[in-house]
Amino acid sequence: MKNIDLVEGKVAFIDQNKLPHVLDYVVTDDYLVIADNIKRLSIRGAPAIGVSAALGIAVTIQRMEEESLANLQKRFGEICDFMAVVRPTAVNLSWAVNRIRKKMESSSPKSVEEFKRILLQEAKDISQESEDESRSMGLFGASLLPDNCRVLTNCNDGMLCAVSYGTAAAAWYVAKEQGKQIEVIACETRPLMQGARLTAWECMYNHIPVTVCTDSMAGYAMAQGMVDVVMLGADRIALNGDTANKIGTYMLALLARAHGLPFYVVAPTSTFDLTIETGREIKIEQRNPEEVTHCGGSRIAPEGVSVLNPAFDVTPGTLITSIVTEKGVIHSPFTNGKIKSHCLG
Amino acid sequence: MKNIDLVEGKVAFIDQNKLPHVLDYVVTDDYLVIADNIKRLSIRGAPAIGVSAALGIAVTIQRMEEESLANLQKRFGEICDFMAVVRPTAVNLSWAVNRIRKKMESSSPKSVEEFKRILLQEAKDISQESEDESRSMGLFGASLLPDNCRVLTNCNDGMLCAVSYGTAAAAWYVAKEQGKQIEVIACETRPLMQGARLTAWECMYNHIPVTVCTDSMAGYAMAQGMVDVVMLGADRIALNGDTANKIGTYMLALLARAHGLPFYVVAPTSTFDLTIETGREIKIEQRNPEEVTHCGGSRIAPEGVSVLNPAFDVTPGTLITSIVTEKGVIHSPFTNGKIKSHCLG
Repeated sequence: MKNIDLVEGKVAFIDQNKLPHVLDYVVTDDYLVIADNIKRLSIRGAPAIGVSAALGIAVTIQRMEEESLANLQKRFGEICDFMAVVRPTAVNLSWAVNRIRKKMESSSPKSVEEFKRILLQEAKDISQESEDESRSMGLFGASLLPDNCRVLTNCNDGMLCAVSYGTAAAAWYVAKEQGKQIEVIACETRPLMQGARLTAWECMYNHIPVTVCTDSMAGYAMAQGMVDVVMLGADRIALNGDTANKIGTYMLALLARAHGLPFYVVAPTSTFDLTIETGREIKIEQRNPEEVTHCGGSRIAPEGVSVLNPAFDVTPGTLITSIVTEKGVIHSPFTNGKIKSHCLG
Repeated sequence: MKNIDLVEGKVAFIDQNKLPHVLDYVVTDDYLVIADNIKRLSIRGAPAIGVSAALGIAVTIQRMEEESLANLQKRFGEICDFMAVVRPTAVNLSWAVNRIRKKMESSSPKSVEEFKRILLQEAKDISQESEDESRSMGLFGASLLPDNCRVLTNCNDGMLCAVSYGTAAAAWYVAKEQGKQIEVIACETRPLMQGARLTAWECMYNHIPVTVCTDSMAGYAMAQGMVDVVMLGADRIALNGDTANKIGTYMLALLARAHGLPFYVVAPTSTFDLTIETGREIKIEQRNPEEVTHCGGSRIAPEGVSVLNPAFDVTPGTLITSIVTEKGVIHSPFTNGKIKSHCLG
């Protein structure tokens, strides 16, 4: 099953705001519907946002009845401008929009039909490449998972953040295809509960045994011998391996170290920021306090209380056993040179 | 302010189910109302349960118009039998009921009036002793908190679990009375959110600056240099210092160790189980899965998903810097002999 697909000239995607209660696909050929769903987080995760934006623009252009190439190009430019800023911090969004924009410039189509055909192909290529990348991460990641492996993870780094497979989850999906028994422990991932809502749902949907626990139970689970491996995604990785990821990741890395468990990060090479030497240069975004004061639609904490709400934390590269990308596995210790040659080589 | 008080012959207590939204006292002279509120968790915490049960029985007996001592004693026995099992696992409940029962047996009152007077005095003594114990823990605990100290804690070990002051919270309340600046970081304490709901509320009520974070943010807060000390309560302590406490405590102890922060446990000597050598002998209660699958009244996780829900975890004594009781401070390393002589000496 795919999270995002092209079906009879339209984009079909899972409405994640309805999960885990209802599996519902939205099917649309309107970029405005895609944009709205990216804003409402019913499409989330870097690869999913980029691919759905590219496909959304392409299918919108397909059904336009402009007779002049110039007019079509004008509308295309306007739609790209609009789409690129729907979520300002989503790097993959502007990356995907820029890629199709550059493609249309460099390929100089001579007709409306040619313009439409090249655009659709480029959007399909972006989608396919994203899927291939997930599949590669899955193959390399699966090589780190023995048979009968119990993997603890947080947030959602699965098919729901990508076209299919995802990043960290790709490893256990591929391992399962290879005939290995894999079990997942999904930390719920307060404040937004992506682990309990999304990772639990997609594991069940894909017949991977999954157990949900609160984030505070990870240490207990390790001490009880319930965990073999910690494996999760990344938002940004520095040249020394320092990794920004969902809040709570740093804590899991310390717990894994204390229990002698391997701690694996799975992310495409596009996640590496080759301009920063260490994690100290990563600015940590503070999000809306209401995410912490509320849960399940209800207020939990007193009115007016102070709140911490960092979106992510930084795990030192020294706590990470290996980083898996679509190109292979980088083992610790991580160095500037090792990471650069992996990403650029 | 007190959590439980005797006001004009009735028991007044805070309805914790209405916190943090509304501060509401229930005032009653009916033991059935007390029992119902213990069951509904509007009275919670070992000392609070014991004291409210004793006071509830005493005020109920005060207003009875039995003219014969034998009849009054019979009613007293029935009420004690009923009250002792309202929450079967609450050791303090049966302890308090047994104490007043024994007192009434040993003191052999000669009249209805004498029976009522001795019973009321014994219940008041239980309450006063509990308050004195909190106050002592507060004094010893405060000695470990320097001026301008930022204390990270979890769950609720404050006035809301006792008559006033509480256990760990007693330390920062006394430190504040001594003129020290204290700030509290309250981990929300999933699944039941006692940190976000109760500790945050009582700190604000008592003018102690407090910040709420999710349990997953504790490592981030320590790495950012926001924490000076971890201080929290205990449910049961073994002879080697191994401490069972609210789920997530073990994780905080590992994080404190990794960041070189002192980790203090505050609990009355009655919390020590002198019959067990290590924490391995402590059975960990698994609670209702719905506490994890739901939050704020809403379902978070998919129907039918497996769940971990241990009520507490065990922190090795080797990760604990000091244990504070009403008798003083026990510093690590903890030994059988040191702990026995502290508790029994």
